[in-house]
Amino acid sequence: MSLTPDQQTEIDSARERLSETRRPTVPALESMLFTAIPVLDHGFIRVVDYMGDDSAIVQAARVSYGRGTRKISEDEGLIRYLMRHYHSTPFEMCEIKYHVKLPIFVARQWIRHRTANVNEYSARYSIMDKDYYLPAREHLATQSTNNRQGRGEILDEATATRVLNLLREDAEQTYSHYEDMLDDSNIGLARELARMNLTLNTYTQWYWKTDLQNLFHFLRLRADSHAQYEIRVYAEAMMETVKAWTPLAYAAFTDYRLGAVTFSAKMLETLKKLLANEPVDQPSSGLSKREWSEMMASLGR
Amino acid sequence: MSLTPDQQTEIDSARERLSETRRPTVPALESMLFTAIPVLDHGFIRVVDYMGDDSAIVQAARVSYGRGTRKISEDEGLIRYLMRHYHSTPFEMCEIKYHVKLPIFVARQWIRHRTANVNEYSARYSIMDKDYYLPAREHLATQSTNNRQGRGEILDEATATRVLNLLREDAEQTYSHYEDMLDDSNIGLARELARMNLTLNTYTQWYWKTDLQNLFHFLRLRADSHAQYEIRVYAEAMMETVKAWTPLAYAAFTDYRLGAVTFSAKMLETLKKLLANEPVDQPSSGLSKREWSEMMASLGR
Amino acid sequence: MSLTPDQQTEIDSARERLSETRRPTVPALESMLFTAIPVLDHGFIRVVDYMGDDSAIVQAARVSYGRGTRKISEDEGLIRYLMRHYHSTPFEMCEIKYHVKLPIFVARQWIRHRTANVNEYSARYSIMDKDYYLPAREHLATQSTNNRQGRGEILDEATATRVLNLLREDAEQTYSHYEDMLDDSNIGLARELARMNLTLNTYTQWYWKTDLQNLFHFLRLRADSHAQYEIRVYAEAMMETVKAWTPLAYAAFTDYRLGAVTFSAKMLETLKKLLANEPVDQPSSGLSKREWSEMMASLGR
Amino acid sequence: MSLTPDQQTEIDSARERLSETRRPTVPALESMLFTAIPVLDHGFIRVVDYMGDDSAIVQAARVSYGRGTRKISEDEGLIRYLMRHYHSTPFEMCEIKYHVKLPIFVARQWIRHRTANVNEYSARYSIMDKDYYLPAREHLATQSTNNRQGRGEILDEATATRVLNLLREDAEQTYSHYEDMLDDSNIGLARELARMNLTLNTYTQWYWKTDLQNLFHFLRLRADSHAQYEIRVYAEAMMETVKAWTPLAYAAFTDYRLGAVTFSAKMLETLKKLLANEPVDQPSSGLSKREWSEMMASLGR
Repeated sequence: MSLTPDQQTEIDSARERLSETRRPTVPALESMLFTAIPVLDHGFIRVVDYMGDDSAIVQAARVSYGRGTRKISEDEGLIRYLMRHYHSTPFEMCEIKYHVKLPIFVARQWIRHRTANVNEYSARYSIMDKDYYLPAREHLATQSTNNRQGRGEILDEATATRVLNLLREDAEQTYSHYEDMLDDSNIGLARELARMNLTLNTYTQWYWKTDLQNLFHFLRLRADSHAQYEIRVYAEAMMETVKAWTPLAYAAFTDYRLGAVTFSAKMLETLKKLLANEPVDQPSSGLSKREWSEMMASLGR
Repeated sequence: MSLTPDQQTEIDSARERLSETRRPTVPALESMLFTAIPVLDHGFIRVVDYMGDDSAIVQAARVSYGRGTRKISEDEGLIRYLMRHYHSTPFEMCEIKYHVKLPIFVARQWIRHRTANVNEYSARYSIMDKDYYLPAREHLATQSTNNRQGRGEILDEATATRVLNLLREDAEQTYSHYEDMLDDSNIGLARELARMNLTLNTYTQWYWKTDLQNLFHFLRLRADSHAQYEIRVYAEAMMETVKAWTPLAYAAFTDYRLGAVTFSAKMLETLKKLLANEPVDQPSSGLSKREWSEMMASLGR
Repeated sequence: MSLTPDQQTEIDSARERLSETRRPTVPALESMLFTAIPVLDHGFIRVVDYMGDDSAIVQAARVSYGRGTRKISEDEGLIRYLMRHYHSTPFEMCEIKYHVKLPIFVARQWIRHRTANVNEYSARYSIMDKDYYLPAREHLATQSTNNRQGRGEILDEATATRVLNLLREDAEQTYSHYEDMLDDSNIGLARELARMNLTLNTYTQWYWKTDLQNLFHFLRLRADSHAQYEIRVYAEAMMETVKAWTPLAYAAFTDYRLGAVTFSAKMLETLKKLLANEPVDQPSSGLSKREWSEMMASLGR
Repeated sequence: MSLTPDQQTEIDSARERLSETRRPTVPALESMLFTAIPVLDHGFIRVVDYMGDDSAIVQAARVSYGRGTRKISEDEGLIRYLMRHYHSTPFEMCEIKYHVKLPIFVARQWIRHRTANVNEYSARYSIMDKDYYLPAREHLATQSTNNRQGRGEILDEATATRVLNLLREDAEQTYSHYEDMLDDSNIGLARELARMNLTLNTYTQWYWKTDLQNLFHFLRLRADSHAQYEIRVYAEAMMETVKAWTPLAYAAFTDYRLGAVTFSAKMLETLKKLLANEPVDQPSSGLSKREWSEMMASLGR
């Protein structure tokens, strides 16, 4: 695990502190606070703070006072309605803050999601820890032959060993030179310069805070099977926290976003013909070969 | 006051609910939760929820774990440093949500602040209450003669009475016609159409959520003496909530933003001459008459 | 039409001005520049400026230099691919700026789209024109009985006349009092106060600038049949400008967004049963009645 | 220089293309289009497209039609007024798009500015060029002793040589292993994995588009003397393009932002005492030692 003993002590002590509050509180998420969920070989995510719950979504949708008197079943129906019809603003009323430790090349994908607040560990100001990512053997794969941004076959054991050796030795060497350059009694180079010698699998850390609507957008893209494995595992760990935090919104999200499929106007016409048992094939459908095969895959054909 | 008895009952009942939490909690703000602060004749703001405190700012700046062991005096110095040097991201780690009731013409200024989450009462979906803003006599003033977007002299009593009568009668009449148009047994016009007959001093309501950095930006512009009175009073009420919530950040904000003054490069040259007792006046300073007078006003000359 | 003679003269003169540029230029949109498209009874939109074209989308997707050597057919396929798979950032590389005249109650819906730049006519600073919206008779309808935010039957002629008289008389009277309050020789009230007496169908104006990705998001919501008629007509006029500006992106948008339909995970299961001629009805599908009827409507059943 | 012959040919050919437009056009910036300005050892910036000019700022501020009849001197005064009083929305009406080649560790600072549109070269999809940054000897410096995020003394020649050798050898070796891992006939590792072996001084490329208001915010922070040299040189090159594009806004920016100084409420009190020749020193001023010295430095004392 990737927490130092000092960090663990601090977290444990913060965990002890209990306060009374009039704010909406979610016991299932409280029990996750101050607990780091391991991701990859040295990374983690942990929920640091949160605001709101399923009721806060309902409350905003109703712009009503307090938590109202409606039954849970009505809340569920309303939340499903909001999700289905892309009424996104009520979901923005919930906010969550994570502490994340992640490799720099993952951080560079992640930061593309702009509607979030970020405070990252500064390598201008501080010295980076010696922590770098090495994939597990089952995740070392060749370039996909049919998808320019995907993976193909798993490497055989000998080749995997060669890759791991290259990655490890280069990370060790560049970090060792980083230390030499920083060392006052040796070179004493400015930290903001020395850092450029580190490799992209070096771990960094940040606080990342966003609202539930933007988090769902992040998760839809990053928990998707087309996302790179190394960011997908973070998204999957966050999914668990959202499930604990806002179970109704989470269920609506998995039904209407994650598991949903969108058909274009042309695909819809094809679909109607299929349902009417009218003859239709790719050339006559007006769909490209790629669209046709994507559509048939969605329909399990 | 502007809460209906039903609303007050709901708020009172929500107020009773106390939970235990591991999250940072601010007792001074907790005591304000579920309490509406009156603003103008029928408006209010109330804090609905919040995330973070002064320590959360410090924590993000240090990207450290837990609440750390530094003394309060060090936290204060760090927060002042962050504010002074425009390191804004740590302030984004705190979030607050308000419920606001405000006249539509104020809402139209307010919504210009885009980095916030909003859920407004919908006049497409629901019927607007009969609540309109009438200024107090001491806030009825003539157009300023030297500031195209300001106020001048207070109206005399007779003229103020004429204005209040016009505003009241027009608001009453347009609302009465709004009701007639909505009335099923009469016209039954769609709500989304009937609403266009209401005047801009009609009150609306919304949930408004933002982070502390963007809230400070809002307050700097809207708590300023040049802001229109009718939005400034909302900003002033919010200032009290921020003072209770994040007292260190609030103090830094008042010192480095609200009470601060910025001198341009040219003004700085003039200032140096003044300090050196060198002769300088408006024509020789290179400043426009307006800049010169603004600068001298800042210096209390 | 809603342009004053002075405005028309200025626009005509600006229209004459031709410059040479190395920037991507779209002749079909150039011919629309400085031409106001009428919307509603006194409103309009006109394109003031634009940046980029279909090639700029392709260029960003390829992060290549210049306009490349690919054929149009490849550009079209790439743009369709980007749209289908929600790769949104290349569409952000195109920017457009509109000048819009619109009723205030429409402006209040419009401004909810936050990712845009806005400069609105200021009623604090200037005097509002006497321009108010009156619906055409065929758009005066009752409140819908099955949709809380929609319209039902068209009003009969006599009732429509009553509504139009109420709207006209109230707009005339409140504007007349607005003028009295502003009149120096009469009351001389500050403009920022007097404006509150105007009704929500008063026209305002703004410059509104956004990128193509966010414009598509706006159009998907506002050109939709569920959008209020009074904003939908603006969206429809903008659709024409986008069709002229970026025809490939426009075609992909209409196919994959406007005309598309999304089925939830549960709906997809139902769809597979229907295609396999397995028995399924609303109760056995697990879908709510509302979802079932929405789904069947999409499939034209 | 960092453009390949193919890229240069494409840019040259695009440069030839001239179109007629009715849009505001800035000859001084046109002459910079399709010309890469070298930055660092292998980087560059070049303006790809732009929208608007100084007149567009004025036009938005006046929400007037066309380019108006005011004289340049009045435009200048208005732009200075807008800048001085933080009326930021008119500056958002201008938009600019750059193509930038920059080291990854610089890109990671740059991307913190969120209000911009970005399309970056994808190392999941494509193979990174062998291009890495090596500082010039005069920019290799020790860690500052009094500023935790700054540089101190320049390294002596022998030490600089050691640093350059370490940086070069590690970049060469990690890139060489990156190639081995990618090589189909050797390992054939997926590109999305192999990239993690590259060092942070590897060059990447992106299209970056923002509005003038957000660009000024970027430049105020990044053209500042406290910014890291490696990002400051990009900001300085962009300054030249802004000077050509919107000369009036640029001049106002340098006077009111870049060259300006802000004094806190407490500093202002001290300043008034200094001007009145009243005795005041650091302890009696209520300023911290650091604030006092920052203030005295601003005043050239």
